[in-house]
Amino acid sequence: MHTLVLLAHPYAKSYCHALYERVVQTLEASGHTVDRLHLDADGFDPVMRGPDLAVYAKGQSADPAVAAYQARIDAAQQLVLIFPIWWELMPALLKGFLDKVLTKGWAYEPSRWGVKGHLDHIQRAVVVTTMNTPKWAYRWLYGNAVHRSLVRGTLRKCGVRQVQWVALSPVSHASQKKRQAWLDQVAGLFTR
Amino acid sequence: MHTLVLLAHPYAKSYCHALYERVVQTLEASGHTVDRLHLDADGFDPVMRGPDLAVYAKGQSADPAVAAYQARIDAAQQLVLIFPIWWELMPALLKGFLDKVLTKGWAYEPSRWGVKGHLDHIQRAVVVTTMNTPKWAYRWLYGNAVHRSLVRGTLRKCGVRQVQWVALSPVSHASQKKRQAWLDQVAGLFTR
Repeated sequence: MHTLVLLAHPYAKSYCHALYERVVQTLEASGHTVDRLHLDADGFDPVMRGPDLAVYAKGQSADPAVAAYQARIDAAQQLVLIFPIWWELMPALLKGFLDKVLTKGWAYEPSRWGVKGHLDHIQRAVVVTTMNTPKWAYRWLYGNAVHRSLVRGTLRKCGVRQVQWVALSPVSHASQKKRQAWLDQVAGLFTR
Repeated sequence: MHTLVLLAHPYAKSYCHALYERVVQTLEASGHTVDRLHLDADGFDPVMRGPDLAVYAKGQSADPAVAAYQARIDAAQQLVLIFPIWWELMPALLKGFLDKVLTKGWAYEPSRWGVKGHLDHIQRAVVVTTMNTPKWAYRWLYGNAVHRSLVRGTLRKCGVRQVQWVALSPVSHASQKKRQAWLDQVAGLFTR
């Protein structure tokens, strides 16, 4: 499967980067082709500006980068998103990627029952997150906000049927052994 | 009360703008002082870049705009946030404002019980959102993600005890009469 692996983390020595490299290596070793998308390195501008919004209803964007990202998603059969959870959610850079790239008409269209997703060529999406909040607190206090908004409210809404979320936590105090085990666990999702 | 009113919406004729103008007018007519913060017009850069992250643990920011925003929040006793819900969440511009401006040491610090908030000088925060998703769907399918992440996981965590969320929906098909009633309802929160 051709897989688009998206990373949203600015620090090159972050654990998210290690996950990103490991996922890419594992996919390539398993015979898949990989499209690396390092959003910070790309210099993507996540802000939906007046001119973007003015043409949004027509299914267009004023940012020329958007069409190129859409072509890369069109070409993918699998999607991997790797990012840290800051203030219970994805970084602004990834939020803006959703805001701007998932245009009406291309990613979805309004239907009688709400929304019809157009990204059903994506056979699987895997969301890998790091955070310091304990998992129980993230679930019970903050309602698994990334799952509700990104998995259910964005990817599934856009027609991606199979979406897995791997929540790694707490990362800041994790031992080297634990970090290694998590890398293996995430890699294990991509070995065939 | 000195109130910081923050708007995150790029389109000058949006309903969010109408809400913003009405809130500002109402506060001023009630004898409060207002600090208008139109994040789009400010040209705020919401991206947490490498240099920002490198000094985050030290409670600093590489973006000179951050300290000025913090001073404006320091001066406020009340906070109003007005924005549209896109993909179940706030626009990237506002998400990045939280990521960058709510620095460690200033907005909060890690404590034995998780986090101790420092913004307890804010006596009240009001979050006003617009969306097209019906309220029942936003609650049951998407877990009131803005409430969980922003109200509970950010503002309350930073020490703001009283936070109200006013969810206006569905906006796109609302009649003029309905829109006017919502403006009155929101204004009613600030008449004394």
